[in-house]
Amino acid sequence: MKLCRFGEPGAEKPGMIDHNGDLRDLSSQVADIAHEGLSDTTIEMLSKVDAMQLPKIEGAVRYGPCVGGIGKFLCIGLNFSDHAAETGADIPEHPILFHKATSAVVGPNDDVVLPRNSTHGDWEVELGVVIGKTCKYVSEEEALEYVAGYFVSNDVSERQFQTQLTGQWTKGKSCDTFGPIGPWLVTRDEVGDPQDLGMWCDVNGKRMQTGNTATMIFTVAQCISHLSGLMTLHPGDVISTGTPPGVGMGIKPEPVFLKPGDVMELGIDKLGSQRQEVRQDD
Amino acid sequence: MKLCRFGEPGAEKPGMIDHNGDLRDLSSQVADIAHEGLSDTTIEMLSKVDAMQLPKIEGAVRYGPCVGGIGKFLCIGLNFSDHAAETGADIPEHPILFHKATSAVVGPNDDVVLPRNSTHGDWEVELGVVIGKTCKYVSEEEALEYVAGYFVSNDVSERQFQTQLTGQWTKGKSCDTFGPIGPWLVTRDEVGDPQDLGMWCDVNGKRMQTGNTATMIFTVAQCISHLSGLMTLHPGDVISTGTPPGVGMGIKPEPVFLKPGDVMELGIDKLGSQRQEVRQDD
Repeated sequence: MKLCRFGEPGAEKPGMIDHNGDLRDLSSQVADIAHEGLSDTTIEMLSKVDAMQLPKIEGAVRYGPCVGGIGKFLCIGLNFSDHAAETGADIPEHPILFHKATSAVVGPNDDVVLPRNSTHGDWEVELGVVIGKTCKYVSEEEALEYVAGYFVSNDVSERQFQTQLTGQWTKGKSCDTFGPIGPWLVTRDEVGDPQDLGMWCDVNGKRMQTGNTATMIFTVAQCISHLSGLMTLHPGDVISTGTPPGVGMGIKPEPVFLKPGDVMELGIDKLGSQRQEVRQDD
Repeated sequence: MKLCRFGEPGAEKPGMIDHNGDLRDLSSQVADIAHEGLSDTTIEMLSKVDAMQLPKIEGAVRYGPCVGGIGKFLCIGLNFSDHAAETGADIPEHPILFHKATSAVVGPNDDVVLPRNSTHGDWEVELGVVIGKTCKYVSEEEALEYVAGYFVSNDVSERQFQTQLTGQWTKGKSCDTFGPIGPWLVTRDEVGDPQDLGMWCDVNGKRMQTGNTATMIFTVAQCISHLSGLMTLHPGDVISTGTPPGVGMGIKPEPVFLKPGDVMELGIDKLGSQRQEVRQDD
């Protein structure tokens, strides 16, 4: 099942994609794709709804972030062995964790706006995970039962802010618009094995990233288990699970960074695709 | 003006401290001490309320986190030159930023619960700042106008999680209960200069930290200006601005860490004090 949120920023309505790929208004069934609405009970209820009977949304529409009311946006760094290699980093012993500010979250096709003084913007296609049920100290074996679904995430990054501002990585990850998520939250039953999903990212029509979640160092289940040993994960928390090779800073002989006018397009098997135009604050 | 939230976790009511130091129920005036209720307009409205006419809350009461609906919990690291020295770190060129998960937030006197496998819990008395108005690219000169008020923050830390789990610092900062804030949000007019506040922290009755916000490397205004250049700050975002010397990991010849049964008491001039008992998850 593909759930989504559509409409103007801050006023998104819940939606569902029918089997023809058309968008249907889900407002009559749930208030939002958020919080307790991500529970197994709600998702099972929605799975019984006949999408073809819901109002069809015609014409152009903005997709919002595919989940609302995000409590925390956790990100795993250097989680693909080949991406770790391209950045020159060692393979980490445990999942590397950083936070992306929830204020960075935008819709999948919204503009990405580089902050003033930003010269090192970069792209990262990642598998996003939405937590559906509260969990703490969950085992690796049980971890995926706590997932509501998956989505495409662009963990947009500013490499100079990330590494040269004497902060932690979060400085280069939390800028406004640096968290496009969606277009859909695809429920876990429809995705099946999260460790067998192809991933890609194009910049200005050129393929930059190609990968597969099969080469993650820490699986989704391992990440959830590890994180839930540190803190409680709540419904609506999201985890972006790391990016495969091909980011701009890894390009040889010279790294390539985002500039105004660039277009990023990215997608993951079963989860749809995103498209962002790059702008910059004056 | 001293604003607060009281009652059971998740069901806190807004409160105000009257000039006798008694707690008054503010529910008739505002829904919560949160979000847009932190605006200058609301705070000015509240300043005209006669606290003595509000219902007085008698007897023992739990204080909740002094601000609700926190969007992001930003923390500045190594922001006191003498604390930086005790940890052996260089003086940073810019404010060091990390995130504390908002799920870590608890009331000022709630128990601090060490996670399983935690052996390196530590204390950090810090000046907390509540953003009252949306700001981006704000100058240092204007930054304090965006502050609703200040509070006492214990940036509880797990040093092994923070530095030995191949993550970023947030791993040791985001455990559940690692964010006691309050008892009060003291409005900025009542605090005056935030760079002239004495700070202290006792563990088991022994004075461990003594400091003053005068020795911050980056002032509150500088931190807000810097952070707002990276991302928009929204009403209800909070910033914990760093700790003075005397944390457990800096003690010579051997560091001292928290264990179950320990009691932390900490306070800041004008902002009240906190008291937490330490427990540990089985």
